[in-house]
Amino acid sequence: MEHTELGVVHTAITRADPKDVAALSAFGVATIHEAMGRVGLTRPYLRPVYDGARLCGTAVTVLLQPGDNWMLHVAAEQIQEGDVVVAACTTESEDGFFGELLATSFRSRGCKGLVIDGGVRDVAELEEMDFPVFSRAINAKGTVKATLGSVNVPVVLANALVRPGDVVVADRDGVVVVPRERAAEVAEASRRREDAEEGKRARFRTGELGLDIYGMRPKLAELGLRYED
Amino acid sequence: MEHTELGVVHTAITRADPKDVAALSAFGVATIHEAMGRVGLTRPYLRPVYDGARLCGTAVTVLLQPGDNWMLHVAAEQIQEGDVVVAACTTESEDGFFGELLATSFRSRGCKGLVIDGGVRDVAELEEMDFPVFSRAINAKGTVKATLGSVNVPVVLANALVRPGDVVVADRDGVVVVPRERAAEVAEASRRREDAEEGKRARFRTGELGLDIYGMRPKLAELGLRYED
Amino acid sequence: MEHTELGVVHTAITRADPKDVAALSAFGVATIHEAMGRVGLTRPYLRPVYDGARLCGTAVTVLLQPGDNWMLHVAAEQIQEGDVVVAACTTESEDGFFGELLATSFRSRGCKGLVIDGGVRDVAELEEMDFPVFSRAINAKGTVKATLGSVNVPVVLANALVRPGDVVVADRDGVVVVPRERAAEVAEASRRREDAEEGKRARFRTGELGLDIYGMRPKLAELGLRYED
Amino acid sequence: MEHTELGVVHTAITRADPKDVAALSAFGVATIHEAMGRVGLTRPYLRPVYDGARLCGTAVTVLLQPGDNWMLHVAAEQIQEGDVVVAACTTESEDGFFGELLATSFRSRGCKGLVIDGGVRDVAELEEMDFPVFSRAINAKGTVKATLGSVNVPVVLANALVRPGDVVVADRDGVVVVPRERAAEVAEASRRREDAEEGKRARFRTGELGLDIYGMRPKLAELGLRYED
Amino acid sequence: MEHTELGVVHTAITRADPKDVAALSAFGVATIHEAMGRVGLTRPYLRPVYDGARLCGTAVTVLLQPGDNWMLHVAAEQIQEGDVVVAACTTESEDGFFGELLATSFRSRGCKGLVIDGGVRDVAELEEMDFPVFSRAINAKGTVKATLGSVNVPVVLANALVRPGDVVVADRDGVVVVPRERAAEVAEASRRREDAEEGKRARFRTGELGLDIYGMRPKLAELGLRYED
Amino acid sequence: MEHTELGVVHTAITRADPKDVAALSAFGVATIHEAMGRVGLTRPYLRPVYDGARLCGTAVTVLLQPGDNWMLHVAAEQIQEGDVVVAACTTESEDGFFGELLATSFRSRGCKGLVIDGGVRDVAELEEMDFPVFSRAINAKGTVKATLGSVNVPVVLANALVRPGDVVVADRDGVVVVPRERAAEVAEASRRREDAEEGKRARFRTGELGLDIYGMRPKLAELGLRYED
Repeated sequence: MEHTELGVVHTAITRADPKDVAALSAFGVATIHEAMGRVGLTRPYLRPVYDGARLCGTAVTVLLQPGDNWMLHVAAEQIQEGDVVVAACTTESEDGFFGELLATSFRSRGCKGLVIDGGVRDVAELEEMDFPVFSRAINAKGTVKATLGSVNVPVVLANALVRPGDVVVADRDGVVVVPRERAAEVAEASRRREDAEEGKRARFRTGELGLDIYGMRPKLAELGLRYED
Repeated sequence: MEHTELGVVHTAITRADPKDVAALSAFGVATIHEAMGRVGLTRPYLRPVYDGARLCGTAVTVLLQPGDNWMLHVAAEQIQEGDVVVAACTTESEDGFFGELLATSFRSRGCKGLVIDGGVRDVAELEEMDFPVFSRAINAKGTVKATLGSVNVPVVLANALVRPGDVVVADRDGVVVVPRERAAEVAEASRRREDAEEGKRARFRTGELGLDIYGMRPKLAELGLRYED
Repeated sequence: MEHTELGVVHTAITRADPKDVAALSAFGVATIHEAMGRVGLTRPYLRPVYDGARLCGTAVTVLLQPGDNWMLHVAAEQIQEGDVVVAACTTESEDGFFGELLATSFRSRGCKGLVIDGGVRDVAELEEMDFPVFSRAINAKGTVKATLGSVNVPVVLANALVRPGDVVVADRDGVVVVPRERAAEVAEASRRREDAEEGKRARFRTGELGLDIYGMRPKLAELGLRYED
Repeated sequence: MEHTELGVVHTAITRADPKDVAALSAFGVATIHEAMGRVGLTRPYLRPVYDGARLCGTAVTVLLQPGDNWMLHVAAEQIQEGDVVVAACTTESEDGFFGELLATSFRSRGCKGLVIDGGVRDVAELEEMDFPVFSRAINAKGTVKATLGSVNVPVVLANALVRPGDVVVADRDGVVVVPRERAAEVAEASRRREDAEEGKRARFRTGELGLDIYGMRPKLAELGLRYED
Repeated sequence: MEHTELGVVHTAITRADPKDVAALSAFGVATIHEAMGRVGLTRPYLRPVYDGARLCGTAVTVLLQPGDNWMLHVAAEQIQEGDVVVAACTTESEDGFFGELLATSFRSRGCKGLVIDGGVRDVAELEEMDFPVFSRAINAKGTVKATLGSVNVPVVLANALVRPGDVVVADRDGVVVVPRERAAEVAEASRRREDAEEGKRARFRTGELGLDIYGMRPKLAELGLRYED
Repeated sequence: MEHTELGVVHTAITRADPKDVAALSAFGVATIHEAMGRVGLTRPYLRPVYDGARLCGTAVTVLLQPGDNWMLHVAAEQIQEGDVVVAACTTESEDGFFGELLATSFRSRGCKGLVIDGGVRDVAELEEMDFPVFSRAINAKGTVKATLGSVNVPVVLANALVRPGDVVVADRDGVVVVPRERAAEVAEASRRREDAEEGKRARFRTGELGLDIYGMRPKLAELGLRYED
């Protein structure tokens, strides 16, 4: 893995297999995170900027400088059909790095959405376009184009490592990153998990208790849980 | 009142009278809080996880451990028709303690909703089920089942004391806790307050000022408020 | 400019020209902020209390005391058709200073909405009335009427200076303050900016890159951006 | 237990036995919290306002209104030798409720310190007096004396329930509340815990591992922990 | 008052009278804030970066861009003996804008310290130099020199308006801004307040209560405060 | 690089060369971060728990579960002379994962300190031992030993990637991570940077301006900075 550095654009990246991306797109973020072994989530402060936003694609990563969105323009050229742009920042910054014009540009390149550890604006327009964005803030504050960052280096996004080409899935429950080598395996494990849940759901619906479905009573007793009137 | 302790489930609790709960369910949280004498609210960081969520019921209380939702399964068995589950945590924790499967389980027992000082997930599914949840976070992060907490002990929920059987009401304005002994009195006071507001609303609508409706001018003058061109 | 002080109401204020306010109302907050030279925004924690809230008007300013909404009643008398009330507080306070009754009062005087660095309640009713409010919190907590603040003094609202009569515009992207003397100029600059964006939008839609539209490549090369396979 | 309400002063409260308070004062907050069964802590945002602050005493409780310190003056009259004042607020408020003059007053009554879910000022003077204070903020902002709160009602302090007469201990690690009925038992359990730790400390010092001292290896193996080169 | 704008340096500013600055330097921030009528404080998140930091001087104001400290170098040239630099930012930014080299530069021009709504670094060195700094964060993160801000325009610093030449006083309790025209008056009022407090301190020390010193009992009774056994 | 996963301990890790670690230990965090090209810092919320704490060593990494410090005991066995323990958590958790007993254990194995994205307790004892700790919180709250995490997997620590064996340096300005392969190069670059600063410091001391030392005036003029009386 290359180190994170400033001032470089990697133009040849290895993307997860589109078939695996398609498979993962059928599952929710909570399911995928469980199927991966309870890792891979960003911090929960990244939220959809409008109701119903959802995305799944391969990451074109961007390392931004605070208050500067220049590298998003540089990244646009690297986008291929099916990518999502994943933008981290060298520091905490909530300026409005992204809006409707960049969304128009990204979409014209086949981009499936944006996840950004920063702010965005033109939120009404983004919803109208149905261009899904997950961000830490909504902020009209404009940015400059003055300082180099990087494109397609590994980045840490809201405490989760993302490498170019990894699969990123985001929905109302949060954002999860699936390493590209694990995409097939995780999609398969997600499927198994969903199947298992289906059976449990039916039992819960009839009033059966998790205490019994999961056989929890002996362990609770062993640890000393007391029932008192 | 029993002390808060870990490792116990109280199975026999005294619930507020269902008639009083029904009476309280007609009022908003702001009205009830005023009618109680301006006490009883949780901190405002507890928010509905979807638009339109609203709940009113008697509390089955849960004391969770961080990142561990075991006690929610234990609590399920204690739920009776008309209860709401009120889950506090021994520390600040925003993991996803609750999702669609537990909601299915709770609903099958007659549960009217959940208020939790923690995170929840499967938010889209919860909205689809119309199972009302108020939480401090939305988070796909899964939890374990490893450490004992308690059920039906007094808990402090986002800075408000809740005892088993107290009435909890939540709507878009927040969450309020009515001690079970005060439920009838507070419902009555809420009714009086709403009636009083109705008259004022009509006067405000015609352009009459609060300065005059409430007779504020002499007091303002006495305290020295100056009007200047 | 008068200094900020407590205990005074200025009854004769100079409002921005209604024609300029009308002109500004056609633009979004992000556009106006850019057209002003990237100044004038409040901090982004002020958010609409319901989807679709939007406002534009001349400021009647209020300086509140924590947990005390008395001065909102005093301010009501100073409202003229086309005003918005802008309420700052002498300290950080998230109590519910404002609700449906005051909204009824304000609207009867011609008020176009409220921006408040505090909490509000009765949010469902405010949405039903379509009375736009931007606030830092939603909170059922009631307030008292005991201590003097001021009306129509300069206030600092979420880190932005607002003088009585300035134009305040708020939408989903945030809140911007236009000094009354600059209202005409900023409206005109906003118009020019929107026109310029229209041309760019068309080019972005066809897949042209910002790198080329804005001629960024030479500057990036000069600063040493490296492209690597 | 009386309910929390506004506008009342309870003058006859039951304090923990001074002998038990003295016993508890020998232990740190972390030890006491463990000895109580891992309950009783406030949220960790309450911090000492100067290095070396430490306190232990019986609670005179105060329920403040935001930005209003009137009830601290009312509380002063209720202080007896060995008390600490515990001040909660009906809402989140970081104003400077307390300073050097009130500290002088409290000390003259035998007060051992203050824990307040609010702000304080005159911090340099408090340190010079060595009057221990734990607060959520340091803030020069003054307060008013206009609205009733209460003295010696049960309060929730930074998410912990405190009743008048309970023992409150605070040091660099935080703040813990011991119900007055449990004071003797908790002091005794704290002593046992400290004794047990002394033996472990010696073993750790020689390089022995917790894995062996606590016999953790079988359980780790059972849960499947893998060691890999 | 000039409007806040980007890209300008005002070289001729009107400073408060040095005699008044000297008079104000004798008082604490809490006293000055009270003497001004309870206005003028910044938000309390601005804190000294080392124990014992204290400053008083006339403001050279700076408007920074996020992550960019260029304007601090521009400001250095405008510093005169007795000035303090007051640095606001167009947005929230916690990067390390300032360190030991700039402190050396500022001190060589007669600067008395820095108040910055941003981050600083080299804190150990600043303490060794005893160059007082009040900031919102400590952060090793470096900044660039790429985008214009302004020097000696009015700025909003942590929610307080500061104009060039105003007096800024900071100590352990916070930061207060005295408009230059009010400096003499506020110094005089501070003196009176301190004198009045001296008498009260003596009375408090003997155990006399604020209830009696301030004559509060009748008002408390009138509002209905109940005393109960 | 292995993926982050739960339930594994890597016993054979590659540490940075001790000679390079020694070289890095001579420099401050701000210098190292600049010498690395302005990358490698954690978020600034990790702070020393006592004045004067400083550390430099090779990372033994730990991935904790919320409220569970079991893996710190597992990590103790992996510590070699010169290591620092770097503890991330699968979620945000401020419980007291670490105290004086574990510090005694770690020190007996040659450990140079701890950086933890969580809480710690026994802070007075840690200072007395002079065992340096950098954490996000101080909290007396105890933890359990119930759920597997990992040791010596790559972790993300307060938004910075740390691999086992990387060099971690922490001082009053923050925490920086130097990839083990870059340790020599970064130490050398830090030396060059310090030498360069020494010359500038002397010039600043005489009153020379950064505007002239760095030759900034032409660029400022080109960008249009206006000087006005």
